[in-house]
Amino acid sequence: MMTQLENARSGRITPEARRIARDENISPENIRKRIAQGSIVLPKNRMRRLLKPCGVGKGLRTKVNANIGTSKNSSDIAYEIKKMRAAIEAGADAMMDLSTGAKVPKTRRAIIKKCPVPLGTVPIYETVINGFKRYGAIKEIRDDDFFVALEDQAKDGVDFFTIHAGVTLKAIEALRKHPRILDIVSRGGAFLAEWMIANHKENPFYNDFDRVIDIAKRYDITLSLGDGLRPGSIADATDKAQVTELKTLGELRKAAMNSGVQVMIEGPGHVPIDEVESNVILEKTICGGAPFYVLGPLVTDIAPGYDHITSAIGGAIAASAGADFLCYVTPAEHLRLPTIEDVKEGVIASRIAAHAADIAKGVNGAKERDIAMSVARGERDWKKQFSLAIDQTKPKLYRKASKPGSRDVCSMCGEYCSIKTSRRCFKKGK
Amino acid sequence: MMTQLENARSGRITPEARRIARDENISPENIRKRIAQGSIVLPKNRMRRLLKPCGVGKGLRTKVNANIGTSKNSSDIAYEIKKMRAAIEAGADAMMDLSTGAKVPKTRRAIIKKCPVPLGTVPIYETVINGFKRYGAIKEIRDDDFFVALEDQAKDGVDFFTIHAGVTLKAIEALRKHPRILDIVSRGGAFLAEWMIANHKENPFYNDFDRVIDIAKRYDITLSLGDGLRPGSIADATDKAQVTELKTLGELRKAAMNSGVQVMIEGPGHVPIDEVESNVILEKTICGGAPFYVLGPLVTDIAPGYDHITSAIGGAIAASAGADFLCYVTPAEHLRLPTIEDVKEGVIASRIAAHAADIAKGVNGAKERDIAMSVARGERDWKKQFSLAIDQTKPKLYRKASKPGSRDVCSMCGEYCSIKTSRRCFKKGK
Repeated sequence: MMTQLENARSGRITPEARRIARDENISPENIRKRIAQGSIVLPKNRMRRLLKPCGVGKGLRTKVNANIGTSKNSSDIAYEIKKMRAAIEAGADAMMDLSTGAKVPKTRRAIIKKCPVPLGTVPIYETVINGFKRYGAIKEIRDDDFFVALEDQAKDGVDFFTIHAGVTLKAIEALRKHPRILDIVSRGGAFLAEWMIANHKENPFYNDFDRVIDIAKRYDITLSLGDGLRPGSIADATDKAQVTELKTLGELRKAAMNSGVQVMIEGPGHVPIDEVESNVILEKTICGGAPFYVLGPLVTDIAPGYDHITSAIGGAIAASAGADFLCYVTPAEHLRLPTIEDVKEGVIASRIAAHAADIAKGVNGAKERDIAMSVARGERDWKKQFSLAIDQTKPKLYRKASKPGSRDVCSMCGEYCSIKTSRRCFKKGK
Repeated sequence: MMTQLENARSGRITPEARRIARDENISPENIRKRIAQGSIVLPKNRMRRLLKPCGVGKGLRTKVNANIGTSKNSSDIAYEIKKMRAAIEAGADAMMDLSTGAKVPKTRRAIIKKCPVPLGTVPIYETVINGFKRYGAIKEIRDDDFFVALEDQAKDGVDFFTIHAGVTLKAIEALRKHPRILDIVSRGGAFLAEWMIANHKENPFYNDFDRVIDIAKRYDITLSLGDGLRPGSIADATDKAQVTELKTLGELRKAAMNSGVQVMIEGPGHVPIDEVESNVILEKTICGGAPFYVLGPLVTDIAPGYDHITSAIGGAIAASAGADFLCYVTPAEHLRLPTIEDVKEGVIASRIAAHAADIAKGVNGAKERDIAMSVARGERDWKKQFSLAIDQTKPKLYRKASKPGSRDVCSMCGEYCSIKTSRRCFKKGK
């Protein structure tokens, strides 16, 4: 049984590749070539019946991922599934289940069963939760335990894994030598660092990366090489530890690709606006054009409650510079586990960023939708405007709540509508 | 009586310039020099007692303007004053009164009286409203009427005027030759175009710009040369009409500066993300480094209900490329007259954009606030985090609504807090 990557390399166009070619209006042969090069990934576990596969990478629409999952103080599976539905309805292209609450495997299986889009996880969370239960401390976890979770989750049908294999002893040394404001803000990265420091041992995912590759290959799971050392403060961005990790990820990617396993690379994080583009270029250069999956970037640290906006700014810039996949950030970031409403707002903000970037990237159909919207605005065709909007609910509510004098204008300008005035003077229709 | 510009040129540092120097932590002599060059403006009508003057331009904190004002279908003066207070509380540095409802002069005077920050208007609105009342049609307005509103508003104490003097016959010709999706989306621009086309006459503000200068000089009003031909669809951005107008504004600026009148230049509008920076460079080059006051830019047309986000993206990029003054856009844009809640959300989104840009610009104190926030995050000092946040209300509410297991973490990760794990393994405090 071949992986998507092996199929592409041997010249075969899989049904999923064909579907993506159709969805993106790109020739199947071009999709195949880019999968073969590794500039596009197609995350799909071979055990999964996946209703809406999607491609991530070069020339494709920028995709949006939404994280859901339980937490120690909130383990309601049904509520997480509601969040998933809200995210997908708002336009998320992929989901990640980051559960750390009660019954992690049960939660995951329930989510996978109902999830029509590619689903990712961070398997080390389960390892750590089980480790705490069994041994009482992270440092007691045995090397083997890290791989048990991978195997279990692979069997469940997870489509992509975040693996923090770049948090090496060398990278931790870089962190010690070049101190940060916030050392490690990735949960997976922090767990691994604690285990490694306490045991004076190398990262098991790095040390035994072949075992990661083996599992990924058997199930055709896409590896999302995690940035365990992503900056959590703009002052820490693009530092020695971050770049050391990125270089390691570039090497690990080669090894995975050589074995026929698809790879994407995860990126920051909190990054000042003038370093966002460089971060994308750095990743594309060091990691051979691999799809770049960014969390944010958040362009300032001081806007808790509005980090969907700080991330939309960074995400739009990153994606227009070449990032391929935006992990949403909700208004709840840094404050609490997101609610359904937070999830919806987060997805919409990321979709705005993705679409703004797609216009710059020249993605098929992106600019055309804006033009159609502007034509509808010119005609004051409200129904059409709503149908073309990224979110149709809120604009309808907004308009309904106001009382424009006549039906064709809005209450901002009323009869002094600039568009109406302008059409009158240029004698363009009504 | 000298204007701020004339004072600066003759080597005098006015009390307002001194105050700005202190607020921005820049030497008074540097502020004076930049006012003299015209790279900083200090909008203040000499008739006004202005509690919080602010400077706009080179090396200063990026400023945020919030528009308020009545509309034909909503003419509640008290409500507009509430909006003003909400905007200033949320951090707006300046206000514009764009009233077009009943009792425009009364509304303006009520607002000016209570407005502690620089206040701008678009005087042509009043001209057109009076013109409609008196003559029944825009085209009947007499040349002189355009200047009557300027004089009236100057006497009331308005600090800066938007004057669409660049909507010339030549620019309208460019619009005809290079058709747009949305011809004119500026109200002032559309009114002038209708009047000019109907009467086959040149723009009175352009034709008699000396009269504009004369009024501005007598009251020391800063001219904000309006972009009546700003693109209202990303497909129309950076086109012949827009650039023709910008060139005219550059020439008019010189004339105003030669007479001792301060000038800033207004900019777009709807602009694709990859043209935002070029628009700033174009303005700075053509207009001799004049402060650039942008509306957005909105980086996509398809997000009604979320144009505070589309504008935060464009505004952050524009400001980090050198734009100096962001006109907020609220979630109500394209849909209705904003409510108080819309105003607040709009100001906060713009302030996020401005601050993200200020980090890149290297503005005094900008990055330091992010560092302080990240330090507070590291210590899980919630009180400190709230006090450093751009908006303190929402994060408090968010945290209050959730139930983290222990008081020092949040409900996202609970005890699996990456920051706590990381501090434990690097043995940094609690």
